[in-house]
Amino acid sequence: MNYRIITSILGRILAIEAGLLLLPLAVSVLYGEAVMPFVWTIGLCLAGGGALLALGHKHTGTLHPREGFASVALSWVVISLFGALPFVFSGAIPNYIDALFEIISGFTTTGASVLPAVEVVPKGVLFWRSFSHLVGGMGVLVFMMAVLPTDDEHSMHLLRAEVPGPVKGKLTPKMRGTARSLYIIYLVMTAAEVVFLLAGGLNWFDALTTAFGTAGTGGFGVRNASIGAYGSAYVDMVVGVFMVLFGVNFNLYYIVLIRRSLKGFKSQELGVYLLVVAAATVTIALNISHLYDGFLQAMRYSFFQVSSIITTTGFATADFDLWPSYSRALLVLLMLLGACAGSTGGGTKVARLVILGKTIWGEIRKLLFPRAVGRVTLDGERLEAGAIHNTMVFYMLYTLIALLSFLLLSLEGFDLETTFTSVISCLSNIGPGLGRVGPTGNFAFWSGPSKLVLSLCMLLGRLEIFPVLTLFAAGIRARKS
Amino acid sequence: MNYRIITSILGRILAIEAGLLLLPLAVSVLYGEAVMPFVWTIGLCLAGGGALLALGHKHTGTLHPREGFASVALSWVVISLFGALPFVFSGAIPNYIDALFEIISGFTTTGASVLPAVEVVPKGVLFWRSFSHLVGGMGVLVFMMAVLPTDDEHSMHLLRAEVPGPVKGKLTPKMRGTARSLYIIYLVMTAAEVVFLLAGGLNWFDALTTAFGTAGTGGFGVRNASIGAYGSAYVDMVVGVFMVLFGVNFNLYYIVLIRRSLKGFKSQELGVYLLVVAAATVTIALNISHLYDGFLQAMRYSFFQVSSIITTTGFATADFDLWPSYSRALLVLLMLLGACAGSTGGGTKVARLVILGKTIWGEIRKLLFPRAVGRVTLDGERLEAGAIHNTMVFYMLYTLIALLSFLLLSLEGFDLETTFTSVISCLSNIGPGLGRVGPTGNFAFWSGPSKLVLSLCMLLGRLEIFPVLTLFAAGIRARKS
Repeated sequence: MNYRIITSILGRILAIEAGLLLLPLAVSVLYGEAVMPFVWTIGLCLAGGGALLALGHKHTGTLHPREGFASVALSWVVISLFGALPFVFSGAIPNYIDALFEIISGFTTTGASVLPAVEVVPKGVLFWRSFSHLVGGMGVLVFMMAVLPTDDEHSMHLLRAEVPGPVKGKLTPKMRGTARSLYIIYLVMTAAEVVFLLAGGLNWFDALTTAFGTAGTGGFGVRNASIGAYGSAYVDMVVGVFMVLFGVNFNLYYIVLIRRSLKGFKSQELGVYLLVVAAATVTIALNISHLYDGFLQAMRYSFFQVSSIITTTGFATADFDLWPSYSRALLVLLMLLGACAGSTGGGTKVARLVILGKTIWGEIRKLLFPRAVGRVTLDGERLEAGAIHNTMVFYMLYTLIALLSFLLLSLEGFDLETTFTSVISCLSNIGPGLGRVGPTGNFAFWSGPSKLVLSLCMLLGRLEIFPVLTLFAAGIRARKS
Repeated sequence: MNYRIITSILGRILAIEAGLLLLPLAVSVLYGEAVMPFVWTIGLCLAGGGALLALGHKHTGTLHPREGFASVALSWVVISLFGALPFVFSGAIPNYIDALFEIISGFTTTGASVLPAVEVVPKGVLFWRSFSHLVGGMGVLVFMMAVLPTDDEHSMHLLRAEVPGPVKGKLTPKMRGTARSLYIIYLVMTAAEVVFLLAGGLNWFDALTTAFGTAGTGGFGVRNASIGAYGSAYVDMVVGVFMVLFGVNFNLYYIVLIRRSLKGFKSQELGVYLLVVAAATVTIALNISHLYDGFLQAMRYSFFQVSSIITTTGFATADFDLWPSYSRALLVLLMLLGACAGSTGGGTKVARLVILGKTIWGEIRKLLFPRAVGRVTLDGERLEAGAIHNTMVFYMLYTLIALLSFLLLSLEGFDLETTFTSVISCLSNIGPGLGRVGPTGNFAFWSGPSKLVLSLCMLLGRLEIFPVLTLFAAGIRARKS
């Protein structure tokens, strides 16, 4: 392992975090709040970043895949360790473990919170909390690549580890240019949502933070009742539609907007994604229509919640924990599924489900017609056996991690529905779950060790497991040698 | 599809079922109960079987894998359709769908029941219900092969579809002899348990039916309080140990007893299986010791329940639905896992978990050492990529079927814990679950359509999915052409 190159990357990441913290600092100044929590954190970031950069100064050699994976995983740990400080310094979340849970939830765009009420928290801190969604959504290292000079071979290994989804081949050439384009699309879409929300009567603070939460598919709100607090069908619709848009593979936008080709929309994943959203919205609306004022009202709440859960955002306009079993069961399945690969959303990704479905259908065909060619294609291109293998290994790992975390958390003795959905919600980067972690609940009741397990689940989910596992495996290896 | 050969196999199966029904008929005579329910059923089996044999009389050609799969799946459906009749004719279960659920639960060795109390049911009917576990445990077609002349190539395709587990290569030569040896081992072990139970004070009826339930890892009891009714630590221990023994791969007994080689015990699957039993027993005992009179008492109940659930038997000596979250969560995980491949138990099988664990570890090694050879071995033999692929496809199918059934059943509006564990309990052929289907509950409250979904789950679970799926796929294909 080339530790110097990793140290140097971590140093740069901390310097960037110091820069990002200037924004919540400005908000604190604007609202006349205490600025010292941010000043202190910025100072510590600069000190820590400087030390790491000095240590890694003369880094040589190439960045191998495992160093790429380790850098990405450690970067996310390091920005979280420092990013938690404003919560502690401001007194909003005095316990450091709780603060760490909250900021990991922010950066991983989970949106699970330990705060029972957010309206009492200083605006600057709330801004930092929502801003972490925007930063984490597209990826901290993608951001670094977009703004700092790095060579393309290095970038590839970093991008591969940080961008979610099973198929990443198309983004390799001209990494830095691509990263920049993706960030521009991302920020323009966020800005568009801000404009729509301002038009709906939201103030600047609420419009910005809500858009950050949508863009990163994070879900931290600045109102106790989440998006339901605005009580506006227009706002529900704007946020609902933008959540769906941010759940689409950004490669498609890239192909359509930058390469000006409509081929991007011919994606099979996109088709399945929109079909699932439509089918889930309609069937849930039918299932809950007796709770609301007619089918159309039910559609409003159903669409918002389906969009929020499948994209793994986690905003709420209704207490879906009170909905009938079918709606709750389907929402849990959508939590497992998640959004499109290459979007800011979490979960196991629609693309993987498409690959899985085609693989299984191929197996059944082979049983019926032993001489049939077992070829699996995606968007007309043949999938290699390796890609199918990796997809299945990912599912297996996701399941094993979910079940193991479930068992660990069950030691605390809470009901199994709460326990299971807490794990799934964190591993798929959703935010709310069912029972005590439903839309009106929060994660504060879990003990410190359980919060660390859930934090690890959030990181594993956001980085799609392998980069984080590499860290553990490298630790085992280092001890052995 | 060669329909004649399938018809001929189904005819023979019904003739065998008529023969098997003579036993409960004899029990009815012995207890002076109504014999007509069995006489009628035997008559119908003979009439149906005769008609099918006449139809399939001059069958020609070879048995392809898909005909083998279809024969196995249809055989299980046909014996269940007829096997349900004694419940209806005797009035014990007047509704045919309920009766079908009960007998499918019997043949698939699930042990899920619609009966709120069994002690009021006629002895002959109870005997048939428990006897179905013994018949289904080793497999109906394996039995046919053991007693009727069939050529070895045909047998191979049938055996492959009916014997559970990912690796079946070793049993191919001299199929009929092997099938006979397996059945003899199976029956001798069952007889040994009967002797032990008689020594513990059980009467003949209870000893036989309990041994049938253990041997098939089924779990139907003849007392309302299951094995707990006997209130004897000795009986608990006998049943507990025999459950563990029937959860072991029968190939191992075959190798040790018939080939007189100790190599059979060097199985990695066996090691993991026994380790899981030990670890689960101790940790659950620690978790529940405050509910019982000290740690040793807790061990007694913990061992019995772990043994009962991991082997997918489903007998109970305690209401484990009242145990703390950790114990309940771990029991659910053991339901998913199940017993050893090639045993009479259900679930996804320990062998698959071993293969999965080694595959995942291999992937992580490849990440760390890109030049490492990614070879996965089981018991010293290298596993082909195809076997690994099939293992993962099986897990994926198991998961998809479980989630889809969960969604369908959620339409009835029962709590999600009951809904989910009902599905898992049927798909893994356990019997009890949690909540309303806990050890003191039963499956009667599910509607007819849901009972059919659960019945299908039991068949899919027992035949390890593919044979049953082949039927559906063949149906699709027939409609298309």
